[in-house]
Formats: sequence, structure tokens, C-alpha cells
Amino acid sequence: MNFRYLTAGESHGKTLLTIIEGIPSNLPLAKEDIDRELRRRQKGYGRGGRMRIEKDEVEILSGVRSGKTLGSPIGLLIKNKDWKNWKEIMATKKLSTLNSELSTVLTFPRPGHADLSGAIKYDFVDIRNVLERASARETAARVAVGAICKKFLKEFGINFYSRVIQIGGVADKKIKPLIDKAKKKGDSLGGIFEVTVINLPIGLGSYVQSDVRLDGKLAGALMSIPGIKGVEIGSGFDAAKRFGSEVQDEIFYERKKGFYRKTNRAGGLEGGMTNGEPLILRAAMKPISTLKKPLLSVDLISKKQTKAVKERADICAVPSAAVIGEAMAAIEITRAFLEKFGSDSISEIKRNYGSYRKYVKER
Amino acid sequence: MNFRYLTAGESHGKTLLTIIEGIPSNLPLAKEDIDRELRRRQKGYGRGGRMRIEKDEVEILSGVRSGKTLGSPIGLLIKNKDWKNWKEIMATKKLSTLNSELSTVLTFPRPGHADLSGAIKYDFVDIRNVLERASARETAARVAVGAICKKFLKEFGINFYSRVIQIGGVADKKIKPLIDKAKKKGDSLGGIFEVTVINLPIGLGSYVQSDVRLDGKLAGALMSIPGIKGVEIGSGFDAAKRFGSEVQDEIFYERKKGFYRKTNRAGGLEGGMTNGEPLILRAAMKPISTLKKPLLSVDLISKKQTKAVKERADICAVPSAAVIGEAMAAIEITRAFLEKFGSDSISEIKRNYGSYRKYVKER
Amino acid sequence: MNFRYLTAGESHGKTLLTIIEGIPSNLPLAKEDIDRELRRRQKGYGRGGRMRIEKDEVEILSGVRSGKTLGSPIGLLIKNKDWKNWKEIMATKKLSTLNSELSTVLTFPRPGHADLSGAIKYDFVDIRNVLERASARETAARVAVGAICKKFLKEFGINFYSRVIQIGGVADKKIKPLIDKAKKKGDSLGGIFEVTVINLPIGLGSYVQSDVRLDGKLAGALMSIPGIKGVEIGSGFDAAKRFGSEVQDEIFYERKKGFYRKTNRAGGLEGGMTNGEPLILRAAMKPISTLKKPLLSVDLISKKQTKAVKERADICAVPSAAVIGEAMAAIEITRAFLEKFGSDSISEIKRNYGSYRKYVKER
Amino acid sequence: MNFRYLTAGESHGKTLLTIIEGIPSNLPLAKEDIDRELRRRQKGYGRGGRMRIEKDEVEILSGVRSGKTLGSPIGLLIKNKDWKNWKEIMATKKLSTLNSELSTVLTFPRPGHADLSGAIKYDFVDIRNVLERASARETAARVAVGAICKKFLKEFGINFYSRVIQIGGVADKKIKPLIDKAKKKGDSLGGIFEVTVINLPIGLGSYVQSDVRLDGKLAGALMSIPGIKGVEIGSGFDAAKRFGSEVQDEIFYERKKGFYRKTNRAGGLEGGMTNGEPLILRAAMKPISTLKKPLLSVDLISKKQTKAVKERADICAVPSAAVIGEAMAAIEITRAFLEKFGSDSISEIKRNYGSYRKYVKER
Repeated sequence: MNFRYLTAGESHGKTLLTIIEGIPSNLPLAKEDIDRELRRRQKGYGRGGRMRIEKDEVEILSGVRSGKTLGSPIGLLIKNKDWKNWKEIMATKKLSTLNSELSTVLTFPRPGHADLSGAIKYDFVDIRNVLERASARETAARVAVGAICKKFLKEFGINFYSRVIQIGGVADKKIKPLIDKAKKKGDSLGGIFEVTVINLPIGLGSYVQSDVRLDGKLAGALMSIPGIKGVEIGSGFDAAKRFGSEVQDEIFYERKKGFYRKTNRAGGLEGGMTNGEPLILRAAMKPISTLKKPLLSVDLISKKQTKAVKERADICAVPSAAVIGEAMAAIEITRAFLEKFGSDSISEIKRNYGSYRKYVKER
Repeated sequence: MNFRYLTAGESHGKTLLTIIEGIPSNLPLAKEDIDRELRRRQKGYGRGGRMRIEKDEVEILSGVRSGKTLGSPIGLLIKNKDWKNWKEIMATKKLSTLNSELSTVLTFPRPGHADLSGAIKYDFVDIRNVLERASARETAARVAVGAICKKFLKEFGINFYSRVIQIGGVADKKIKPLIDKAKKKGDSLGGIFEVTVINLPIGLGSYVQSDVRLDGKLAGALMSIPGIKGVEIGSGFDAAKRFGSEVQDEIFYERKKGFYRKTNRAGGLEGGMTNGEPLILRAAMKPISTLKKPLLSVDLISKKQTKAVKERADICAVPSAAVIGEAMAAIEITRAFLEKFGSDSISEIKRNYGSYRKYVKER
Repeated sequence: MNFRYLTAGESHGKTLLTIIEGIPSNLPLAKEDIDRELRRRQKGYGRGGRMRIEKDEVEILSGVRSGKTLGSPIGLLIKNKDWKNWKEIMATKKLSTLNSELSTVLTFPRPGHADLSGAIKYDFVDIRNVLERASARETAARVAVGAICKKFLKEFGINFYSRVIQIGGVADKKIKPLIDKAKKKGDSLGGIFEVTVINLPIGLGSYVQSDVRLDGKLAGALMSIPGIKGVEIGSGFDAAKRFGSEVQDEIFYERKKGFYRKTNRAGGLEGGMTNGEPLILRAAMKPISTLKKPLLSVDLISKKQTKAVKERADICAVPSAAVIGEAMAAIEITRAFLEKFGSDSISEIKRNYGSYRKYVKER
Repeated sequence: MNFRYLTAGESHGKTLLTIIEGIPSNLPLAKEDIDRELRRRQKGYGRGGRMRIEKDEVEILSGVRSGKTLGSPIGLLIKNKDWKNWKEIMATKKLSTLNSELSTVLTFPRPGHADLSGAIKYDFVDIRNVLERASARETAARVAVGAICKKFLKEFGINFYSRVIQIGGVADKKIKPLIDKAKKKGDSLGGIFEVTVINLPIGLGSYVQSDVRLDGKLAGALMSIPGIKGVEIGSGFDAAKRFGSEVQDEIFYERKKGFYRKTNRAGGLEGGMTNGEPLILRAAMKPISTLKKPLLSVDLISKKQTKAVKERADICAVPSAAVIGEAMAAIEITRAFLEKFGSDSISEIKRNYGSYRKYVKER
């Protein structure tokens, strides 16, 4: 079974849906395992008003019975708590009332968003048809998938952590005042977050073809988070500045530990594979594109210069992005893990994993 | 037809093989189109002795007839000119002579390479079984694939450029002396390259699912180049430092140009799609892991501390990596292009492309 | 955009979910388009009591706005009308009440079903964990996907038909009495259905690789319908009995028609591609495996010989299977169609399709 | 690692190439393992003159060292022994000599082949551009892939057999006179072959989604063999004629054997999974489409009615198709096997497989 998932749902639609396939049978899984991660995504200094409306929680619709996974596809719903206010504007049916209300049509694409390219690609006049799906709201569904992956990997002692290491130009302590300043200005901020994964076995991913390397998969997964414009592994861009003698992680051995390193500049990945050291990923998020003081744009119909449309927005979403980053990393690691260790039931995978761990120890 | 390709071949094996499927029929294609790119990959100040041996050239074995593609899979060979010296050590057959020569077995994994993780993952004692495929030599095959993709995209006016923008800690002019210094020290250097792609249509890639975003695919493709530890698009990590009002590209319109921007901080990608502006990608390469003065490692059999094995190596491979970066970008753009515009013959795709260009103009 | 979909949901679970990705934007789509097909699946002489309970209807949750598709993933729910009676037994949560009711655990695998292999593969004691997903109920979700595909293809004049051509050993007219006889005996019946697709363009699918041939994809899709044990195209098994001079379709040409055939033994597919003639597929369905008079089986725990468990069942499901067959054919043809003609908006694909039709005419 | 492969090469081109990825490391593999299967494909009463020219043999170019697989992609070449006679007509380069020889252009599409649809799809005037790739010659490459898969599966006691069960309208003994008759008439014959696979574990494939069912994958793989128009599993079309009480395989248990059946009407597949009984597949091949007495066709340029072009051809290729059928089955089973049992080294997979076998026994 290959691991795969699809998400669906518009930002102000009735619900987000997700189907995840390939999670083995007999994994204990509860709604709370997912809700906890959804709440983490919604926290963070600098989030706007919507976060208070959302209070996301999941409904598990399939693939789980009596608290355990069935091996069959897991179906999830995350309802939009604000749906009652959007019922008409987002109706799937054609409503006669809307015909006359052309005023609801958005035709001013916002710079930095999918709006302009999306409207042209998909042949829309109303850019709401784009922004509803291109919205970062979709990442709630990814976090739900990631929550299940993390639960699965935890069975093998693999754990995920993340932290914000920079907001705008500053690190750690001066972050809050900077966010307050941006808020006052009607401006927004980006930053950098870091994801760490510990207890990974040696040998996830492979070097045998370009598209099976785990470094590529992880970079692609992180870059696919809305707003991310840069990704690095281990020393990352800093490694480019150094001499070779400064950037490698020499290899040591001790009976108890097996092979190990005293440094981790590689960030846990060599040759596209995990090397047993902590995985370290960083991603740079641009400031949120929707500003209180809107930017210049052009009306799609009249072609007149105008100001971009304002949707309710956050000032800074880096803390959320870090949680999404964990989820995306968990997804890619689960995929590689299942490819290596097989894929049917938790007990089978535990047997396979245990025997590999034993083999590694005895090398 | 989906675009896909596989490469095969070990670094000192008889040959690299490549099969590319999904290139439309009737594209003019000659050996020279590919050889030109293979030569570009082999140039660059700081490459070691092997580059002089290699002088790569391709043999087109299938998928092309009378100078034009057939729509069927294109088969390529790139022979190893040094094969005669490796015939025995790399023989696919079991040779009785080798049995007695355990001295040829490499058991000292090099830090920064696939050696250790690969030997454990695939259950090898001889790390040559890993390093031969994990070698950057494989990227010659990718450059060949990329050359074909570039030839294809050129039919639509899409062009690729790359440049080295940093080696070690320095930019442009002081690069050569730094390389000389590293060479004298027996050390190696990394750096940063930039790939630019111009004349892309609006709307390649999509925002509708995480894994169809072109930003993610490009980042994954670049990060899969051996030695790459960081990737950024447009302003990249710098964008994380700025206010939102400083990083977006406002939208303008002129009759002749259509929609356009005066800035390109997004690097040509918004919402996971091309926006019609030049695509700008950068990647950070760590210094080459194989050093003249080898690093500490551990013998896989005796578990004794030792120095890592020395294979012939370059001092700095960033110029080559830039050419590989172009190839990887061309591959992903071709994939997205064929998905959008259909996939059978050059004339059909030109009709489809022309009609889309016309539609965009008339929006 | 590649076309893909996933379904989720257990037979007696709360709901079936489906996500479909890759349907172009601006396709008119209403709940009724899908419900009509769901109803067709539930009709047919010989269906059991459940069909009366089900009365399936769909709720479109995403991917459609104001009656038109958005190009983003379409999310569908088909609720289980009988859910209230299954709430406890199928709860995703662990309920304390169930712990004591081991009587609800099914441990007698039914011959001809996934029960035994599924319980072993996924490490279950309760075979309900298998049969709930392995149930043919899942095909309602496939029919919903197929309904959307048929709606899409209808835009291009492509239409689907199906008919039952055999039940048990008899054809057409004597079918009803045979079903009545089987019902009286507590037995079940299979049969053969035929799917016909008209107005397909020349050149869907390809011969360039084994897994891109449309004949293989269609056969695989039909064989994946529960209960199907045989598939044929055009003359099918009969062709194996004849001389070559009797089975080919000679080629003719008339100005108005273009190239055409007077026979269609190939069933519309030559060399893995559509040839412009009607596509003709047939599939053989075995009798339903669940019988009123149950078969011998073995208790999974005690290992004692026993009779297989009885679930409510139909006597003959061939008419439903024919509707599912249409759906599966529509799915594979949509996939091939989008690969050939591009994939973003209905208007773009219509331009591309029109220009190809014109080209074919002018050949 | 997912298992995947690509083949390339034209029928009269220089060579067939194949790349296979995902075969685990340390599998003993020799050229002879593949050549044996290539020779089996070329045998059989009723093959034409080309079989005598071909005498296919493989060259292993990569992925194998000192007689064992490396886990990296395996590259194979099968040279065309007749290449010297086709060098000019099949040159990848544009040769000036050919320009003037329009006489070499084939413009009469043969009924039953890819010729007409392929020429239109890919925009060719010369149908040689189609028939060279659409030729059954490509199946030699598939047989090579299958040979490697069979070698792999043999490590686990899994074996493949095939036999021709019908030629034209007759079975077994009267086959040779019928072929002689067809030869005399300048006609051709098809037939039915059967593939049997023994010692499969319970639980390959799955019921959780339509496209992961092994019955669908096997049917698709067999139907993708050129000339195949029907596929059945176990009782196949015959099952459609019977009552349910006659077609299921009741379940029994004995300590030593575990669960077993006394009948095998399901052909070893229930619910899309292997059930531990022998896998039984049958496929119907239409008579070879190229006849000595050619059929009516139309000239692609002049549109005049004409006779289809004659290429050298066989009278009956069913025995070869049976060998190809084994190969296709081996490919799909290998894919499912690796998904279930993991994928890196033979020793790891043997550990995993052994522990699953033990678990099944102890159920």
C-alpha cells in the first residue's frame, strides 16, 4: 500500500474533507490526537480574528473503528464554524438571488497570492473562485494528516518538534514588540521556523534515483506550504560559505550507541537518506500577502489600476507554519518509513522494524 | 502521457543509461543538443582530473528517427571513457579473480556521503556498492534529460540561464583565488547558484493540492541534486526579514504587455503557479565531501577509528551544479507544461499553446 | 493536473466520502447529475432489501460553486441512511459498552469474500473490520466519480451505455424466471454486462509503454469491481477462436466521415488506443458470494468447521455492476482525455479538442 | 522504494533498453537468468522468420556487481541482431540520402494495429514511426523485467508456470495441423494461454481502494500485451453462468496446512487479494493482425483504397504471449510483494517474510 492523501474544501466552504490511505491497521487513533494538532496550528502571537472563530476540530468519518485504524482509508471532516455566514456566497448550487448581486464578485487580484494567475489559468472572473482554495485554510487538513502520521511514527519512538527562530529581522525575544509594530502599521511579517525529528532509523529515503531522495521530498513538502520561499537542511545556506573540512560530520563508533556523530551539520540527511542523527529542517516564510493597507493591483474587468481586495488576515503566521512544517515532514517520513518497513498492520511493521534495529545494532 | 524518466548506471560502470518518456513527437533533436549541455556540466574552475577523462557524449538509442522525436521513449547512453580501467572491479558477473582480492573492498565510509547509511540500508560490506550509484556522476544523465526538456521548451520561447553567485564566503570576482587557496589546503568549497527561466506562460503548476504546486516541485528537484542543502525562490530567506509591504509585487496592466510587475520578489511564482515573470531559483551547495585530507571515520568491519577513503575529487563543483539546476528546473517545467497543454505532437501542443496565449492576451 | 480520486467509508459507517481532483473548472455540475447515476446503480431485478433502505443521494461539499466546478478538488458525501442502527457497532471511538459484547465479533469468514485474507493481512479477529470496507457498497462512491466524469465527457459528445447481456446461463428474456428460481433456492446468480462508449476521438491512450495502453487501464478498472472475474474488449475470447482474416476491421475512407470501419471486432481499441469506433467492453460477474444457505467455513478463533456468516444480500447484482462498469470506463477515459487535451478549464479544453478534431478531419 | 520500470527501443532500432528500479540488493542475478526467459519467448510452433534472426540475449549494464544486485536501477540492453540492415532507415540522425527516398515511407495502415490511430495521434505521415514502437518486439524487454522479478520471487518459493490451452477453435492435440493450415492459407491464429503462480502468501494486494486490488492490476497487465482482447481469473466467464452455491471455495483448516480450500474457482484471488491458493489467470489473444494476404486499407496521403502493408510476421504467437503473460504477472506480484514486505535488501525482506509466514501459521 502506498501512502497517499487528498484534501478538499474551500476556505469559507461548509467543511474541509480529507482522505488518507496507507495508514496501517490497529493504530490507536482518537479525535483528540488530531484536535490537539489543530489547536496548535491556531495559536501563536499575531494571528487575526479568524483564529478565534475557527476553533477547528475534526470528525473522523471512516477508517477507524472502536479507537483503532482499520487499514482502510481514513476520512476526516473539519467543519467551518463560520459557515452560516457564507452559505449563500459559497453555495454549490446556483442560487437565483446571487445572479443579481454582481457586487459580490471580486475582481481585484491581490499581489503575492494565487489570485491573478489562478483566475487566468482556470478562466474565472470572480477571483473568489481562486482564493477560497488557495487559502492557507487548507493547511488545517494537512495538519490533520500530519497528526495521524505523527501518531503512527510515535509508535516507533520518532518524535517531532518545531520552533520559530526568527520573525522579520529579529530572533526570539524581541519578536512580540515587532509584531505589535507591524500591527499598528497595518503591515505583516514573515520569519523562519525549524523542525526537528528525533529517533529516526538509518536508511529512510534513497540515493538510487533523484526522486526517491528524502532531502528532495522534504524540501518539496515544506516549499509547498503557502508563503514559504526558502528551505534548508542542517547547515543549509551557511554550509555554502565554509570549507569542506568545516562542514562534514565525522563518524565515530561506540558499542552501545553504534555509529554516531559529534556534530550534525548535515541535519540528519546524507546521500538523500536519514543517517540516524536528528533531522533538522528550516523554512523561510514571507510576510502574509494580505495587508490592511492594500497594494496596487488592476481590476480584472475594467483593467483600471486599483487597490487589492482586503480579506481578514493575520499579521504573522510563522508559528502556525511551524506546526504545518511538522505535519509535512511527518507525512514524508511516514511515506519513506512504510516503503522500507512494509505496510499492513502495526504488529507486522513493529516486527519488521525491530528486526532491522537489531540488524543495525549487530553490524 | 505523463512525463517521466529513469536513469541507471554506476559512476565507474560501463555506461549511464536513461529512458525519457512523454516528450511529444516531431521535436527536432540531435545528439549535439545534448552533448552541448554535457560539456557545460563538465566545465568550471575547480573541477578535478576526472572531468578531463570524461568528455561525456551521448548516444541516442531510441525514440528519435531522422532527427525528430517519435513520441516513444527516448533511450540514451553516456559511456564511461575510463571503463577499461574498471572492467574487473565493476564487472556485473562474479569474477573468480576478485574473490581473492579482498583488498579492493572499501570499508571506510566517508562523512557527508551516502556511504554509511547506504551500506547499512542495503546490507553491504563494500561501500563501493553504494558510492558508485550515489556519485554525482549520475547527474550527467539528468543533464541529458534536461537538455531534451530545454530543447522542447525552446520551441515555445522558454529559455534557461544560470550563474554562480557565490563560492565559499565570497561573490563573483574573488572566486578564483579562493579556489586556489582551497586546492593548496587540500580542502573543498561550496557556494550558491541561481537559475533563471524566462518567457513562461501564466498558470503552470496549481494551488489546488499541496503536491501539484510548482514551487514545491522545483524545490524538491533542486534539493535532490547531490550536495544541495538549501533552496530559495525569488527573495527567499531575505523575504523572511522584511515587512509585508516590502515583499509583494504590485500588479500593473498595459494593453500591449497585459498584466505585469515592476518587481519580481516572488521569483515568478505565486500560489504555486507561474505568474508570467521570470522564474528565479537559488540553491546552496555544501563543499564537496571528499577531501584530499580525509576526515575521521570508522572501519565498517573492525569498527576501528580510521580516515575516510579518498576517491579522486573536485575542489568545487558549484558551476556544474548550476547546469544541473537548469536541467532539474527544465524537467519540472516540462512536466507542468505538458499537463497544461496536452502531450502528443509538437504541432498539437503549439496549437493549444497559441490559443492559450491568445486567450490570456484577450482577458 | 493529473486526474485522481480516493474514496473512503465503511458499508455501515456514517457516510461514504470521495475526493476527486483534476476535473477542469467551469463544468456545470449539480447534485442531480450524480444522484441520477446513484439511483441507476440501485435498481435492477434481484437486488435485496438494502437497496430499499439506501436511496443514495450525494452532498457536494466542495469544488463546486454556483453550479460550476472550480478546478479544485470535489468533495462528496453519500450518507448511510441506516446509520442510526449501526452507530454503536461502527463507532470510531472505543465504547465501553462494546467491550463486554464479544458476541458482536464476526469470526466466520465467508468464502468468495475478502474476509479470510483480509483478517490475516490486517491482523484482525473481527472480520467486520474487513467486510465493511471490502463491501460492494464502496462502488456507490465510484459511481459518483463516474457520474462527474460522464458529465465532463458529455461536453464533448461522448456518451456511455450499458446493458446486461447474460444472467447465469441465459440471455435476455428468460432472466427474470431464473432470478426467481435462485431466490427460492436461497442461491445467487452472476452474469455478463456490456459497456459501450460512443463518439470517442481517435488517439486516447498510447502504445509507447505497457502501462499507458488504454486497453490495459480499462481492463484493470473493470476487473477491480467486486465480483468481476473476466473482462473482454470487442470480440474478446471469441477472437481467439477465429482466423486472422476474420477478426480485423478493414479501413475505409469517405470525405465526410474520414477514416471509418464497417465492422468493430476490435471494440474501438487498436494498439492500446481508441480508433474512433465505439468502445465495447464486457465483464463477467460471478454470483454474489453471500448466500442465504451459507457455505462451509472455519471459525477464526476456535478453528472449528462452521457455516459462513450471513449478511443481508442480493440475489443478483449484474445490473448494478453494469452501471459501475460505465463509471469505471468513464474514469479511465477522462484520465486519458485530460492527458491528451490538457486540463484546466472547460473552455480551454474545448478549444484544444476542437482544433484536434479539425486536424483529424483535414488529415 | 517503489518498484517501477521503463522500456525503450524500436522494433528495428539498434537495441531495446530497459531500466528496472526497486529490486532489492543482494539478489544473485546473472545474464543467463534473463536469457533463458528471452529464449522461451522466441520458441513456439508458428513463429515466423524473425525469431530465427533475433536469438535475443541481454547485456546487463548496471545495477549488478559481482553477480548480485546493488539495489540501484538495473539497466539492460537487448541488441537487434538485424540492425545492420536497418541502420539507414532507422537512423536517429537525419540522413540526406533518405530525403530523396520517399519510397521508404509507409502510408498504408494495417487493420488491427496501432498504425492508423498512432499516425493521427502523433502527427506522422510515415506509419513506420508508429509500428516500430507498437511492435510486439517491445515485449522482449518486458520478459527481461519479468525474468528478474521471477528470480526475486523464487527466493521466496514463488514459481510461475504457463501453458497454451487453446489455438483457434481447438485445444491441445490438434493445434499443429491447424497452424499448418493457417500457414498455407496465408492466415493467422490466436488462442488462449493460462498462467499459474504457486506458493503465494495470503494478503498480496488489497481491497481498500479500487486501484490497489491485485485482480485489477493483473488484468490490466495482461490486457496490455499486444493482441490480448480478454482476461479472466479462476473460473472467469464460466463463473457468470453458474449459481452462487457452485462457484465459491469453501474454507477448511488443518493444523499443518493452516486454512485451505478443496477447490480453486476464485483462481487464488478473493477481495482483490491473494488467498494462498494458486493464482490462475487466462488471456485470449486475437490472431496476429498482419496477414500474408493483406486486408483492405486506405492510403494516408492519397486516401485511395489499398491493401495494408505487409511486414514479415508470425502465424501464431500464443506460446510467446504465454511467456510474456508470466512476465507481466511476475511484475505485478513483485510490486505487491515489495509493498507488503519492504524493499531494501534480500536479507531484510527474508526476515520480514519469515516473520509474516510464522504469524500466519500461528493465527
